[in-house]
Amino acid sequence: MYDIIVVGAGPAGISAGIYGVSRGKSVLLLEKGEVGGLIGKVSTVTHYAGIVPGETGKTFAQRMKQQALDAGVEIRQETVQQVQMQGDVKTVVTEKESYECKKLILAGGSTGRKLGIPGEEILAGKGMGMNAAQHGCAYAGKHVYVVGGADGAVKEALYLAGLAKKVTIIHFEPQLGCIAEFREKVKKTPNIQLMLNARLHAVRGENQVEQLDIRSELDGSVKTVEDPGCGIFVYAGTVPNTQMYTQLELQDGYIPVNEWMETQIPGVYAVGDIRVKQVRQVATAVADGATAAVHACIG
Amino acid sequence: MYDIIVVGAGPAGISAGIYGVSRGKSVLLLEKGEVGGLIGKVSTVTHYAGIVPGETGKTFAQRMKQQALDAGVEIRQETVQQVQMQGDVKTVVTEKESYECKKLILAGGSTGRKLGIPGEEILAGKGMGMNAAQHGCAYAGKHVYVVGGADGAVKEALYLAGLAKKVTIIHFEPQLGCIAEFREKVKKTPNIQLMLNARLHAVRGENQVEQLDIRSELDGSVKTVEDPGCGIFVYAGTVPNTQMYTQLELQDGYIPVNEWMETQIPGVYAVGDIRVKQVRQVATAVADGATAAVHACIG
Repeated sequence: MYDIIVVGAGPAGISAGIYGVSRGKSVLLLEKGEVGGLIGKVSTVTHYAGIVPGETGKTFAQRMKQQALDAGVEIRQETVQQVQMQGDVKTVVTEKESYECKKLILAGGSTGRKLGIPGEEILAGKGMGMNAAQHGCAYAGKHVYVVGGADGAVKEALYLAGLAKKVTIIHFEPQLGCIAEFREKVKKTPNIQLMLNARLHAVRGENQVEQLDIRSELDGSVKTVEDPGCGIFVYAGTVPNTQMYTQLELQDGYIPVNEWMETQIPGVYAVGDIRVKQVRQVATAVADGATAAVHACIG
Repeated sequence: MYDIIVVGAGPAGISAGIYGVSRGKSVLLLEKGEVGGLIGKVSTVTHYAGIVPGETGKTFAQRMKQQALDAGVEIRQETVQQVQMQGDVKTVVTEKESYECKKLILAGGSTGRKLGIPGEEILAGKGMGMNAAQHGCAYAGKHVYVVGGADGAVKEALYLAGLAKKVTIIHFEPQLGCIAEFREKVKKTPNIQLMLNARLHAVRGENQVEQLDIRSELDGSVKTVEDPGCGIFVYAGTVPNTQMYTQLELQDGYIPVNEWMETQIPGVYAVGDIRVKQVRQVATAVADGATAAVHACIG
């Protein structure tokens, strides 16, 4: 029996674990992938106060992981398959084992949204749906596309511009939807080109992306671009990982909480990108985790 | 005219500045002392996710300052003397100049509470009211006292135990009020001694502390301890720096805000230790700053 089980080891979950242990509680942190969550996969961690300059998501995630382990958080790489949330004892079932706890903190974050277009699945990893931090170097001197115009997309486009010969941002709106800082940087980056009012409609190719269909949002026309060997990096929003939590009422897929991060089920908390919130940043995720854990320890 | 003026450069104010600039706004950050606030003066920064291992408050503050400057935040070392908060244009007056802004973010934090005992003022800096991170080394091999039993006090006692010959924690309650992690560490630190149910009642000496009067909370008796050359480190809570904000209704001296960190005056925000809140940590201060700045930029 653990005092606290945290599901998901992004910044929110890591912070919850560190705070739980500091209050003398036993904490099990379950993570199906790598520690770090989505932020562990970005090219650069930005705007988090005190961040090491130029830090990558990977090194940030590694330091958080070590910090949690040093603090005494138990981390297991297992996939949660089922959760029983009601009552004083909660049960969390993974592919390997069943665990019990008094308090449960859901920190499963979100996953990059798929475009749902023809060719996306079959060419995944073959030029389609690449990750800038992980695959950027493989596109040095080549042409890459970034799909999306919000902060996450434009940040990665700026990173890729330092590697690739040319970066084309495909965005469905008439202008980028990112913060001013990134917009200004794009203006000053000559090898970034904007393809606005446009959607990636389909990708085709044998064993690698060779053709892109791009649909105009203005007149619905579709043009085909021949670009063998290009890389397509999709950052078109995220979907909260709440599919499993059918016992909770969701708002647009996100979990509503009170000021202590507690859900409508006593002893069950939701922190970070998985919860209803206004500002989705490392800074707020880390605060969520601290707040929930402090309450879980006194409650 | 600035878009945003932030008063106070602790983690909350720094975070607000970084976020404001990232949204394309001009931000002036006013700080009367050193960048970093109270956390800039601690021996070790703990529990903040992603912190560099063993980092001192000083190096953490330095990195935050550089991050803010690199982002384009204007930082001026001036003392705010007067603030006019009503209306669309706010005015902030320092000892040097008068500034105008559209949005005002109050991030003045808190100040260590004085004990208000005889000898405290006259022996300040002469063994009394020392700072562990700053003066700890001067007490290597000597006897030091830490006044206080909450997290901040015990953390510094643990730090001082690595330098001093003996550390005596003077705390008025029957047990320490700190987190379990620190309590366990105290148990394992042989040169820390607890003096519980006790208050420092007076200090005396010529040019340095020579005698301490310690009052028992149990029977009110006062005993005098001769300890020339000792150091006394006071961590007996904090007082929010809100004395200037007479235009705002306060709760126990703290500023109430809504979920966007906005006070009852439109366009005026309060973030970090200065506001009414449950969890006072670097993590939550940084989130406060981010949240307020994001709202100030869209509002």
